[in-house]
Amino acid sequence: MLNEKLLKLRNEMNQKGIDAYIIPSSDAHQSEYVAEYFKGRRWISNFTGSAGIAVITSDSAGLWTDGRYFIQAEKELEGSGFDLFKMAKEGVPTYSEWLKSVVKKDGIIGFDGKVISVSAYDELKKGFNDDNFKIQYDLLESVWDGRPNFPKEDIFIHDLCYAGKSVIEKVDIIRELYHSHGADSYILSSLDDIAWTFNLRGSDVLNNTTFYAYALIEDNKTTLFTDQNKLNEEVKLYLKENKIVLKPYDKVADTLSNLEDKNIYLSPDRTSIYIQSLLKNNKVIHNKEITTHLKAVKNEIEIQNSRECYLNDSIALLKGFKNIEENFKKTTITELDVEDIIKNERSKIDGFKGISFDTIAGHKDHAALMHFKANEKNTYTLDTCGFLLVDSGGQYLNGTTDITRTFSLGEITPEQKKDFTLVLKSVITLSRAKFLKGTTGYKLDMLARYPLWLEGIDYKCGTGHGVGFFLNIHEGPQGFSVKKTHDLPLEIGMNLTIEPGVYKEGRHGIRTENTVIVKKAFTNENGTFYEFETISFFPIDINSIDPSLLNTDELKWINSYHTATFNKLSPHLNADEINWLKEKTKQI
Amino acid sequence: MLNEKLLKLRNEMNQKGIDAYIIPSSDAHQSEYVAEYFKGRRWISNFTGSAGIAVITSDSAGLWTDGRYFIQAEKELEGSGFDLFKMAKEGVPTYSEWLKSVVKKDGIIGFDGKVISVSAYDELKKGFNDDNFKIQYDLLESVWDGRPNFPKEDIFIHDLCYAGKSVIEKVDIIRELYHSHGADSYILSSLDDIAWTFNLRGSDVLNNTTFYAYALIEDNKTTLFTDQNKLNEEVKLYLKENKIVLKPYDKVADTLSNLEDKNIYLSPDRTSIYIQSLLKNNKVIHNKEITTHLKAVKNEIEIQNSRECYLNDSIALLKGFKNIEENFKKTTITELDVEDIIKNERSKIDGFKGISFDTIAGHKDHAALMHFKANEKNTYTLDTCGFLLVDSGGQYLNGTTDITRTFSLGEITPEQKKDFTLVLKSVITLSRAKFLKGTTGYKLDMLARYPLWLEGIDYKCGTGHGVGFFLNIHEGPQGFSVKKTHDLPLEIGMNLTIEPGVYKEGRHGIRTENTVIVKKAFTNENGTFYEFETISFFPIDINSIDPSLLNTDELKWINSYHTATFNKLSPHLNADEINWLKEKTKQI
Repeated sequence: MLNEKLLKLRNEMNQKGIDAYIIPSSDAHQSEYVAEYFKGRRWISNFTGSAGIAVITSDSAGLWTDGRYFIQAEKELEGSGFDLFKMAKEGVPTYSEWLKSVVKKDGIIGFDGKVISVSAYDELKKGFNDDNFKIQYDLLESVWDGRPNFPKEDIFIHDLCYAGKSVIEKVDIIRELYHSHGADSYILSSLDDIAWTFNLRGSDVLNNTTFYAYALIEDNKTTLFTDQNKLNEEVKLYLKENKIVLKPYDKVADTLSNLEDKNIYLSPDRTSIYIQSLLKNNKVIHNKEITTHLKAVKNEIEIQNSRECYLNDSIALLKGFKNIEENFKKTTITELDVEDIIKNERSKIDGFKGISFDTIAGHKDHAALMHFKANEKNTYTLDTCGFLLVDSGGQYLNGTTDITRTFSLGEITPEQKKDFTLVLKSVITLSRAKFLKGTTGYKLDMLARYPLWLEGIDYKCGTGHGVGFFLNIHEGPQGFSVKKTHDLPLEIGMNLTIEPGVYKEGRHGIRTENTVIVKKAFTNENGTFYEFETISFFPIDINSIDPSLLNTDELKWINSYHTATFNKLSPHLNADEINWLKEKTKQI
Repeated sequence: MLNEKLLKLRNEMNQKGIDAYIIPSSDAHQSEYVAEYFKGRRWISNFTGSAGIAVITSDSAGLWTDGRYFIQAEKELEGSGFDLFKMAKEGVPTYSEWLKSVVKKDGIIGFDGKVISVSAYDELKKGFNDDNFKIQYDLLESVWDGRPNFPKEDIFIHDLCYAGKSVIEKVDIIRELYHSHGADSYILSSLDDIAWTFNLRGSDVLNNTTFYAYALIEDNKTTLFTDQNKLNEEVKLYLKENKIVLKPYDKVADTLSNLEDKNIYLSPDRTSIYIQSLLKNNKVIHNKEITTHLKAVKNEIEIQNSRECYLNDSIALLKGFKNIEENFKKTTITELDVEDIIKNERSKIDGFKGISFDTIAGHKDHAALMHFKANEKNTYTLDTCGFLLVDSGGQYLNGTTDITRTFSLGEITPEQKKDFTLVLKSVITLSRAKFLKGTTGYKLDMLARYPLWLEGIDYKCGTGHGVGFFLNIHEGPQGFSVKKTHDLPLEIGMNLTIEPGVYKEGRHGIRTENTVIVKKAFTNENGTFYEFETISFFPIDINSIDPSLLNTDELKWINSYHTATFNKLSPHLNADEINWLKEKTKQI
């Protein structure tokens, strides 16, 4: 079968003298979620998964993706002209190994240098010469008919009463930190870091509050590169008042090419090889994104806002859940309806700006898929058998929420009850922890797995992640990671989700997720100890708990958690809702 | 004040044109414990601690040691002519930084290249040139009057019924592994690795079963370099039968200098720079010691022997403890006496070859010092107030033991009882763990700290270490380390101690230590899970436990542990001892 798109691309490759062309999944800022404009890999291969790399030569085409997507990719790639390469499977070459085997010694490998990071390029380059690469061609520009427009949504100011720290304060700290690394300027490409630094938000990417931009921070000057049409007069005035120079998005190339004799700090993981290639007359200093770490440590005003935000979010969630529970036996409610009902309640909250990620509403075996997304074809109608798992969140001016609850809709099996209780034990064990300053999330992850591992159960992901503040749903460097990715310990003010689960394919899925903030517990002769403050208050289904599996400390925790939940939420509810909540937060 | 030894050394340095001379604490094999012959640093500085580095120039002398020894070193260095440098303290230079500041650009730094590892030399060399170093001079040889003799204790065969694997089998695997790294020969310097490989034992170092030797394993030849006088005819015949070439210890230099065109595998952490400097005409491949990892995974015969060994050891310990408990009120028993009583009981066991480390017998506040060693001056006489902590072990043909118990001798405070119970909770939490294949000891360490950290208590060391098999008391790479030192997961057959503690300076110290072996629990859809088999069976003081602090699982664990202890030990005891044990293993 013939893939017209491939034909056109090969034609372009031929004209430009390119032997192999790479199309990854990322955007020009190495974002986790990208605008439609950047979904070229999906366009050319038909593969819709979030992670994958396409590589095309004159006579072959390959798509590399990971274990999550093997089945889906096989189906979607049918007739596309692409061969599937299963990443990390024994005997399957990586795309760079494959390139080495199919590209001649003096062959030319091309790609759009904006969508490949410095780190990825360094990895790819091993075994090749610089001469093997042409990194300036975005061939999709000429071959992709109907390519979506580059996003140009409005940018707005994130008020100081939410953000807590002004752009001037933030830039001052950034300068201090890049100086400490011997730099005198700093290029920022990562979108949430830019949004955080400038206290600006946008909506260029679905469910995110970021906008496409670059920033250059020098000792005496701060420049923001973004589409001028996105800014109204208020924002322009704000930038002026804060002495921020505004330049068009595309002018970043001019500006960077003309920099000279600078020591420029940048993160190779978050900056494209294209951007770095512009800095010919400068010394480049590679290190972690400075702002990512600063942003991860929430300030007091962000924390206070988050507490309120999570409370409001829980009230909306409560109204949604109550509605579902009271009506699903009388009328038809599907998983898709659950998404709508909850989104509708959230949208009534002051400061609501959209949901923070695609809602996961999974009934029965659907919940066993960690990232289930219901659609018109597959959606279940709720019935009284088994669980309903809802993982959802909102974007609000005063924070970003992420919460999962799993409720029994009627009958559950003893196995399901046991699994639910084990997940609860897991949440409690980690939530109660006190830990010495200097402890990593990687080490603490062990505590959440302990009760599940005792029963031979594991979830194949980390226990939790950092959450943005009116920003991305996933944020680093903090996290309860299952594998060690870095040495950075948890710090006071970092927030994290705690979200262990049980996933039994074809049967059921259970996840309970709260968000916590690291705070100081006490200092004594052994050192300074930290602990977690839980800021999610929402009932955990007591009907699904087997109290005989909980020890005294765990029973005490769940009961006092429910008391606090009742006390915090009830002042904002009507009598009917209070009764509902009272029942849900009964002591066990 | 004048240090004659320093004067003599400086004289020698002057004659040899050396500007600075380094004397570390290690021996020629980077051993943890070293023979008296190698204790030159102690001799010249008077500092008796186990870790420290002396550096001498024409007009100054410095001694570097770590936090454990600051107070002791200050006292001992008085009048020695040495200045104390407190390692890891802010503002204190490392010895290599200090050398950089005092040695001229073309100055000469000398040391005995045998006692500095390749890794340590690489670290030291930074900021210097190779020309700055003279690594062949052991100046102590001429200045140290009355230097102890190089040890020459007998070497004997560790029978296959204990070792489980023959030297031929072991060398075959070693060859396979160095081949997989592109090597065709392997130099072994680490003494316990050599003893393990050849199934030979000695007693050159106090409490250890090693002997001074090098080994060279080539594809068609295995050479052992050691003092011929140490071997009787039986051992010589054994070597011959196993096709092992025997050469004198000192001939290692000749042999290695004459090797050519080899790809030689060696561990830079365990091999001296002197040895490496001999390999001029060869390619050297650096990596972890192959044998250390092989040795860490005990084979079935070693495991079965260890079980028996720990049982016999517990019986001796029981007789000792019973004697102490029944007599300390009637007669004077000091901490030193406790050491003797227990050693005496152990020595009656078949196959006993000595204790495996200096016994720690600490009463009251003495036990708060993690590595307390009683002497004639400081020893306490036992009374009915507080705890007695005994950490001890034996070297037997069928294993090496390491066990700690803390017993109340009469009255303990509620705080002491709580602390004792917390330590027990810590032991139980980790001992009960099930964990996915691939999990590191570093991650599991968290489980032991959890119950203590909840109460703001920490112990400033790892939770446990590997134990040799009729070999060194400390063995790697396995361990429940507090800091991450490597990525190696625990494997089936590895043994480890679990030994959390509470140490309150000037008040009390509590430690409970068992040894466990990693074994497979089960495989299911989530992967393969491992668990621990405890092989130490000895009562844990029930009078010091507050059962109200234990949850159901913990109560179940301690009661079933005591049932097993009674069942395993009682068949080997007389009626009187059985009664004593019954009382000690009562259900709570």
